[in-house]
Amino acid sequence: MQVEEIINIDIKAGWKKGTKITFTEKGNEQPGIIPADLVFVIDEKPHRVFTRDGNDLVVSQKISLAEALTGYTAHLTTLDGRSLTIPVKNVIHPTYEEVVTGEGMPIPKDPPRRGNLRIKFSIRFPARLTSEQKAGIKKLFGA
Amino acid sequence: MQVEEIINIDIKAGWKKGTKITFTEKGNEQPGIIPADLVFVIDEKPHRVFTRDGNDLVVSQKISLAEALTGYTAHLTTLDGRSLTIPVKNVIHPTYEEVVTGEGMPIPKDPPRRGNLRIKFSIRFPARLTSEQKAGIKKLFGA
Repeated sequence: MQVEEIINIDIKAGWKKGTKITFTEKGNEQPGIIPADLVFVIDEKPHRVFTRDGNDLVVSQKISLAEALTGYTAHLTTLDGRSLTIPVKNVIHPTYEEVVTGEGMPIPKDPPRRGNLRIKFSIRFPARLTSEQKAGIKKLFGA
Repeated sequence: MQVEEIINIDIKAGWKKGTKITFTEKGNEQPGIIPADLVFVIDEKPHRVFTRDGNDLVVSQKISLAEALTGYTAHLTTLDGRSLTIPVKNVIHPTYEEVVTGEGMPIPKDPPRRGNLRIKFSIRFPARLTSEQKAGIKKLFGA
C-alpha cells in the first residue's frame, strides 16, 4: 500500500552542499522490519556571478591594466539584492583579492556572523604598445 | 644461497617518471618456483629551475611590470649547459607563455624530436603609485 505524505524541509540560509536532512523511518517499509530512513542531501545550483568557498563568496571582475594601476571601484549586487560600491584603494596585481568583510554566506551555526566576499581580478593587458607608450612607461617607472 | 650480480640499466634521455625496467626472473628465488621478476621504476629528482610537463620543460621568470610592457629578454642555461637568449616580442600578460620550440625533453620514441620549453612569467606590480604616475598611466592608455 502506498501512502502519500507531505514533508516540509526548512532550508536555512548558509547550509552547505552535502548537508543531510534525515526523516527517521519515513523511507521504504516492509512487513516485520523497521522502516528505512528518508534522507535528503542538499546540493548547490551554480550561480552566474558568485562562487562559494566555504563561508566566503568569491566573485571575479575583469578590469583593464590602467584601472588596476590607477584605481577601480567595483559595483556588485548582493545575493539579497543590495547594491555594493567597493572602491579599491590598492594597486591591483594579478593575485590581489579585495576582501569585503561580512558580505559572504550566512553561518547557520553562528548567526548573525557571515563569511567574507572576496573579489578577484582578471587584468586585461593591452595586446600591443606603441613605441611612444613604451617610452612613457619606461619614464614613469624609471626602468 | 645469496648470489651477487651486477645489473646495468641504460637510462635513455627523456624517460618519464614511472617508466619500469623489468629483469625477468632476476627477483626472489624459491625452490620449485619460477623466480620473481626484478622491476626498477624511474623517479625524477626535482630540478632547481625547470619543471617537466610531459615532453615540455617549464620555467618561470620574475619580471617587473615595466619589463612585461616594454620588452624583456630571457637568459637561460639549458639542462645540457647551453646559454639561450630569448627576446620576447609580445606584451607579457599574467598567463602569457613564450614557447621555445624543440628546447624541451628528448622524446625517446621519436628521436631527434624534443618537446618545447615554455617560459611562464610572474609579473611584479609596483606596490603603490604616485599621483603623477597614475596621471601618466591614464594619459598613456587613454583611460
